[in-house]
Amino acid sequence: MKETTLLINCPDKKGIIATVTNFILSKKGNTIYIEQHVDRELKEFFMRLECEFDQDEEKLALFKELFNTHVAKNYNMHWEMYNTEKKPKMALFVSKYDHCLYDILGRHASGELKVKIPIIISNHNDLAPIAKAFNIPFKHIPVTKATKEEAEAQQLEILREHKIDFIVLARYMQILSANFVDRFTHKIINIHHSFLPAFPGAKPYHSAYERGVKIIGATSHYVTSDLDEGPIIEQEIVRVSHIHNVQDFILKGRDLEKIVLSRAIKHHIERKVLVYNNKTVIFS
Amino acid sequence: MKETTLLINCPDKKGIIATVTNFILSKKGNTIYIEQHVDRELKEFFMRLECEFDQDEEKLALFKELFNTHVAKNYNMHWEMYNTEKKPKMALFVSKYDHCLYDILGRHASGELKVKIPIIISNHNDLAPIAKAFNIPFKHIPVTKATKEEAEAQQLEILREHKIDFIVLARYMQILSANFVDRFTHKIINIHHSFLPAFPGAKPYHSAYERGVKIIGATSHYVTSDLDEGPIIEQEIVRVSHIHNVQDFILKGRDLEKIVLSRAIKHHIERKVLVYNNKTVIFS
Amino acid sequence: MKETTLLINCPDKKGIIATVTNFILSKKGNTIYIEQHVDRELKEFFMRLECEFDQDEEKLALFKELFNTHVAKNYNMHWEMYNTEKKPKMALFVSKYDHCLYDILGRHASGELKVKIPIIISNHNDLAPIAKAFNIPFKHIPVTKATKEEAEAQQLEILREHKIDFIVLARYMQILSANFVDRFTHKIINIHHSFLPAFPGAKPYHSAYERGVKIIGATSHYVTSDLDEGPIIEQEIVRVSHIHNVQDFILKGRDLEKIVLSRAIKHHIERKVLVYNNKTVIFS
Amino acid sequence: MKETTLLINCPDKKGIIATVTNFILSKKGNTIYIEQHVDRELKEFFMRLECEFDQDEEKLALFKELFNTHVAKNYNMHWEMYNTEKKPKMALFVSKYDHCLYDILGRHASGELKVKIPIIISNHNDLAPIAKAFNIPFKHIPVTKATKEEAEAQQLEILREHKIDFIVLARYMQILSANFVDRFTHKIINIHHSFLPAFPGAKPYHSAYERGVKIIGATSHYVTSDLDEGPIIEQEIVRVSHIHNVQDFILKGRDLEKIVLSRAIKHHIERKVLVYNNKTVIFS
Repeated sequence: MKETTLLINCPDKKGIIATVTNFILSKKGNTIYIEQHVDRELKEFFMRLECEFDQDEEKLALFKELFNTHVAKNYNMHWEMYNTEKKPKMALFVSKYDHCLYDILGRHASGELKVKIPIIISNHNDLAPIAKAFNIPFKHIPVTKATKEEAEAQQLEILREHKIDFIVLARYMQILSANFVDRFTHKIINIHHSFLPAFPGAKPYHSAYERGVKIIGATSHYVTSDLDEGPIIEQEIVRVSHIHNVQDFILKGRDLEKIVLSRAIKHHIERKVLVYNNKTVIFS
Repeated sequence: MKETTLLINCPDKKGIIATVTNFILSKKGNTIYIEQHVDRELKEFFMRLECEFDQDEEKLALFKELFNTHVAKNYNMHWEMYNTEKKPKMALFVSKYDHCLYDILGRHASGELKVKIPIIISNHNDLAPIAKAFNIPFKHIPVTKATKEEAEAQQLEILREHKIDFIVLARYMQILSANFVDRFTHKIINIHHSFLPAFPGAKPYHSAYERGVKIIGATSHYVTSDLDEGPIIEQEIVRVSHIHNVQDFILKGRDLEKIVLSRAIKHHIERKVLVYNNKTVIFS
Repeated sequence: MKETTLLINCPDKKGIIATVTNFILSKKGNTIYIEQHVDRELKEFFMRLECEFDQDEEKLALFKELFNTHVAKNYNMHWEMYNTEKKPKMALFVSKYDHCLYDILGRHASGELKVKIPIIISNHNDLAPIAKAFNIPFKHIPVTKATKEEAEAQQLEILREHKIDFIVLARYMQILSANFVDRFTHKIINIHHSFLPAFPGAKPYHSAYERGVKIIGATSHYVTSDLDEGPIIEQEIVRVSHIHNVQDFILKGRDLEKIVLSRAIKHHIERKVLVYNNKTVIFS
Repeated sequence: MKETTLLINCPDKKGIIATVTNFILSKKGNTIYIEQHVDRELKEFFMRLECEFDQDEEKLALFKELFNTHVAKNYNMHWEMYNTEKKPKMALFVSKYDHCLYDILGRHASGELKVKIPIIISNHNDLAPIAKAFNIPFKHIPVTKATKEEAEAQQLEILREHKIDFIVLARYMQILSANFVDRFTHKIINIHHSFLPAFPGAKPYHSAYERGVKIIGATSHYVTSDLDEGPIIEQEIVRVSHIHNVQDFILKGRDLEKIVLSRAIKHHIERKVLVYNNKTVIFS
């Protein structure tokens, strides 16, 4: 029994659900879970569907072709299909901050994150011991203004080698080029340490302190070529007051960053995120 | 075009979604929204479905019959069908506290609550002026130990007269008899001023203060004959500290009670609640 | 027994607390509550102190003089002293939205807000019936670009007449001139319907929806001549998701606005706010 | 310059603050921070005070004596004085769950927790590798019904040896005897995986799931001989819904447990907790 996850969006029309579920039934599949949403302003239909097939890989490939021809094309669907049991491959990009790395590797070790982590890439060597403690290969690729293009080429090569499905920037302190980002559209997850769109750019905790806000936040989003402007996946906040200084903001923020990033990773792994119009639909 | 909401739960089986959506299609209906959930432990299937029919009332009645015969029976479904555009009729029961009453009538006046309020019933006369200010009929039915049975008979008579669909106890300070409750199964919404199951019964804010909790809450639930044990619809909390005394708890709690009760009422009005096994499924 | 609240800030130095409490003791006062804070970066000392005196008004006036001469000048204090039992006078400015007005008047009627409300001023007539229902005088002063100066002169005259201590803009949809604002420095409280500094200006819920945020907020702040840039008093947030449209944001936001604004008003009434460097210290 | 923290509670009376701050001034100390609170119902005075002395240890010992004789006795004070710069010694008790241990050791390694951890004690051997990775001594002391008394004697011996100031039960799955607990009054911090007083005892996530709550929580408290009844230090919550099963509750709860326990430990380390009447005063 193969479990399959289907993500669909297309212009809203009558009969989509019936068409899809019938097609699955006709191919001896069983729909076990549907979540669906219509954005009435955009008139766009979104659906996440889990189904089971009593078929081998080869027949599934055929199913995909038939689905495309007989269903998807008729409705102008943008669609993706995943083998639910197959763990995606995630690359971690880090720099010097260790809290998100510790958190992700801890969750991975305990089985909470159903993902493979073939490689950690960093522009610094500082976190190599943590990677080692968790038995994950660590690749140090320094990045300077002069070497950036070359460094990214090297990174891309490694990602290709390991057949990486998506990238997590766990407080990676370099900006990726548009060229790099375009190869992983909606497949690079970043954690920004502010409640976006408040305080984009560098040193958001300092800016938040300066402004005297009563609540700080963290935001996880897909990376696009517009810095800090990509589709938001998850946000969380914590209260602060006049007794907290910048250092307190940073400490409180760390806990936020860990939680927000790990939630975003989980949504992505479980194929619960659809991006449309630079916004995310997060199925529950 | 009639909009219809269908709520279904039944033992989980293959093909339910396809069967239901096809049946609707075959009767010239259009499924516009599905949310569905399977409780894997209980092996129970839950679905909320919105669809449109190009039919008059009479044909819809026929549809119900056919649906029951050709679909529901085969799957042992428990199901309800509602005309989405028809506002349900809500009776308010109050005593002396005015904050929830003000809040509900304010939301109703502004059009936020899509419901009719034919009657407010109270065991005290104190809140009659508020009812009058909002132009809602107010009926004073005093309740004592001796007159309780008679009073409830009178209440039931009024509810029947006004064809009341469901009742909201907006800080109504009398316990309803099992006889009364049984006539409105999962159709009486109460607000309890604690984070149930903590602090059931009377004076929960006093108990919370006594215990030294750091967070207080409010809980809205359907009333069953087990006091404070009915299915929980909504809960919310607020932080407290050692600087707050019982009076502060009560003030903070009031805001919670208003918000939690109004959210529960909205869920109920929009037919988003299914009760199963003394728990609620709240569709989004 | 007169209860007095003293708010002090000054450059941090040794011995301030002992000096102040001793001075109070020497004048037969009793310090009953102190909360104090030092901003170590700014090296600024902040204190809120409640004390009791067994004295009449006249002697208190003398105490103020002596405190100024013998204590405040030595430490370069900025200080304010209030008779705790005397209710401040608050003017409400409104336009067409009624939810904050209902909320404030309801809390006032129930005794939750210890304040006098001598006047409600509005640039529209729509909310006059609500003012009437709560027995508060209502003054309609239309404002257009051409009449703005004149209208503000009229508003100021009314505020003077009623000896207004502070103003609350309960979703008042006009921008006050710098000239007006400067006469009520840190005495005008506004509610902005976003999580500032995100989404300043008009239509923040639309912008938040557009950006696809997962959390929306509301912010109460003192009005300064820089629009939406004044010292933040209170903020609160609520989660949203892809299923919510702009209208849902607005409805959810209303509840936030009511709560945030009423909390800010309470802090102000209880003399718990000190402004320094465009930020607030909120004593607990 | 020695920084000292003073925690005081006593029956409320006039002049306590002035007396204490003057006494410190008279001994050439400088009061730099006061937070103070009066429980008006209990008529009890609470104060946390930070001050600096230009003195050596010996003179400080003398100061303590004089403070006791000339101040504390007159007011029936319960008081404690700490050298702020001296890190307290914390023992960790664990069993098989690793998430709180990872979290605490990670925060300790990064310098976030200003504490010494001389020893980890466990009734199982499972977590020994984690202790080793963080270079903290690990002592395995199995506990059975039959050996409990002996095991506790052994634990107490180790705590004495290392001059342990307080104990943290980081999901330690054994109940400590009253004899053990009495030796560390308000010096044993536990994390309970529910929103106490809801769901005391074992398997709270299962009970919460069973009851159908919409919010789950975690509670950190001082251990007393009444199980799960000790003074609450910190609580936090997270929303759940019908889509979450017990396993989801457990995963979400883990994040709560880590955060709540680490906050409680920080409060304790910073000497911000006073216990009175089985409740805590948490200074800010």
